[in-house]
Amino acid sequence: MPYHLRSQEFSFIQRYFSALAGPAALGLCDDAAVFTPPEGRELVMTSDGMVENVHFFSDDPPETIGRKLLRCNLSDLAAMGSKPEGWLLTFARPPHITDTWVARFTQGIAADQAEFQISLMGGDTISTSGPLVLSLTMLGSVPRGQAIRRQGAKKGDGIWVTGTIGDAALGLKARKGEIEDPSGYLVERYRVPFPRVGLPLFGLASAALDISDGLVQDCAHLAHENGLHALLEADAIPLSQAAKNAGEQGFKTCLTGGDDYEILMTIPPEQEKTLLENPLQQNIATQIAHLTTPHGIVPITRIGVLTEGQPAVTVRDKHGVPIVFPTMGWSHL
Amino acid sequence: MPYHLRSQEFSFIQRYFSALAGPAALGLCDDAAVFTPPEGRELVMTSDGMVENVHFFSDDPPETIGRKLLRCNLSDLAAMGSKPEGWLLTFARPPHITDTWVARFTQGIAADQAEFQISLMGGDTISTSGPLVLSLTMLGSVPRGQAIRRQGAKKGDGIWVTGTIGDAALGLKARKGEIEDPSGYLVERYRVPFPRVGLPLFGLASAALDISDGLVQDCAHLAHENGLHALLEADAIPLSQAAKNAGEQGFKTCLTGGDDYEILMTIPPEQEKTLLENPLQQNIATQIAHLTTPHGIVPITRIGVLTEGQPAVTVRDKHGVPIVFPTMGWSHL
Repeated sequence: MPYHLRSQEFSFIQRYFSALAGPAALGLCDDAAVFTPPEGRELVMTSDGMVENVHFFSDDPPETIGRKLLRCNLSDLAAMGSKPEGWLLTFARPPHITDTWVARFTQGIAADQAEFQISLMGGDTISTSGPLVLSLTMLGSVPRGQAIRRQGAKKGDGIWVTGTIGDAALGLKARKGEIEDPSGYLVERYRVPFPRVGLPLFGLASAALDISDGLVQDCAHLAHENGLHALLEADAIPLSQAAKNAGEQGFKTCLTGGDDYEILMTIPPEQEKTLLENPLQQNIATQIAHLTTPHGIVPITRIGVLTEGQPAVTVRDKHGVPIVFPTMGWSHL
Repeated sequence: MPYHLRSQEFSFIQRYFSALAGPAALGLCDDAAVFTPPEGRELVMTSDGMVENVHFFSDDPPETIGRKLLRCNLSDLAAMGSKPEGWLLTFARPPHITDTWVARFTQGIAADQAEFQISLMGGDTISTSGPLVLSLTMLGSVPRGQAIRRQGAKKGDGIWVTGTIGDAALGLKARKGEIEDPSGYLVERYRVPFPRVGLPLFGLASAALDISDGLVQDCAHLAHENGLHALLEADAIPLSQAAKNAGEQGFKTCLTGGDDYEILMTIPPEQEKTLLENPLQQNIATQIAHLTTPHGIVPITRIGVLTEGQPAVTVRDKHGVPIVFPTMGWSHL
């Protein structure tokens, strides 16, 4: 009586994940992926996990959950000025996650794989009695010595952010029914962030990180890593129209909520000058510039400056008065 | 009123994981790790997760849980003939996991990091309301073109395994109180596998994989991947004395249980001849040889052969009669 291959895990992987797999995955049949590192480049690697009912809601569309997981990790690579190459996934599946759910989850990812030109390299599927837990490891690369770090800023460097701040934090509030979101814009920003992949940081930014824990908290990281004080001008912080509509309380949520996945960076004065003097991109009055990426034009806005002082953050209003926040940001523990 | 860095997650990582971090981790302060790939080598990557009360027991020693997680991933790299370089961890922490637990978990890992000369590159800590979920991504390297795959075997290649089979599966039964384990040997093998890191597979094995789902199930994978039939001789399968003591029912558990983390490989006849003619390593009668690794001498035993026929597995007894198993192996879903 010969014994045939009949592993449920094997067929589950083949059914839902094979279509996502690239050459490094070896058909998802081997013990590990094999990847030839690109010549002259360093590897950049990050892992980010998400838990059902902590990082997303059970009834969020499965497509957006997969995309959000992928994009959070892409954002980490973008903050280092690196190019994504591929990813591995651990999928801890509870009994309530149906095959249909998984099919929709992987469909969302498939669309983003095409957008960001990456593929699945490998992973693991395991069962759990608890909530769905997803852990994604993203591999990227950057020319040697060109990774941008959180350290590297100097006193006088301007503090800049991509896009607009706080939409996702307000989106979470809207998702919970705490605020209005008539257009659905805020909830969509909470569900599907725009990772700033391909942002040309090398030669421009002296330090960078992605804003995942809230602008004030992540500015505190920046201040701490560089031993400098981050002084932000509240009026300069770029907000979407939907966020502006949320008023003063909404403003505090924007600055201390999480899930922005915009890039926070410091730019030395000489680079700022070049950036704002470029006639195609300048807006000296508002200190907004634009950077070109393979995924579109990204607005960047100067929101403050690094100064001497304690490694902490001050956000001041137009009268120079520091703003008091009820909490500083999102902590995962 | 300036805002200081006071993220609990940040201090948790610094307290417990900094001591494990190597140069690629950049002090665990950045968005991603930066790793310079070794010249002339390919990268090998695997992710493996473990869930509390699925892959380990809540009251297992935290030290052994960390080591088992690390070693399961090391085993995947070993099966590809590759050398480990470093790892990333996603730690989904429920409220019942105390700081003391985490300290012991990381202490176990620290000891193994020294043994296998690897270091932590990065990761993510998140909270969960469910069981503890751990996901580890291990990065390794291999000279270009020298990764050993599951495919590559030919008809007539011998089937070999490292070490002894089934101790961990019996250890799980002992852990549940279903069988005796007076010496504690079996439970220890369940808790802390021996990954066969550094096994010199290139030039020797035509295909290899690690045995994680049970010998019969993993032989079915081997058969399936190579389009050949795996014919195993029950009497040749190497068992520890503790496993022999478990009798006939124990033998079936050994072959269909999981968690061996030994290497299953195929060796072409000409390499087998060389291996068994080496006067220092031979045991032609029992078809046992020995391979040298940086972590000690590893016995390997010939347990069968790949033949023409349906891609499936037959285990026959000394009279040539196929053995019937109640289940074929462990499936994670």
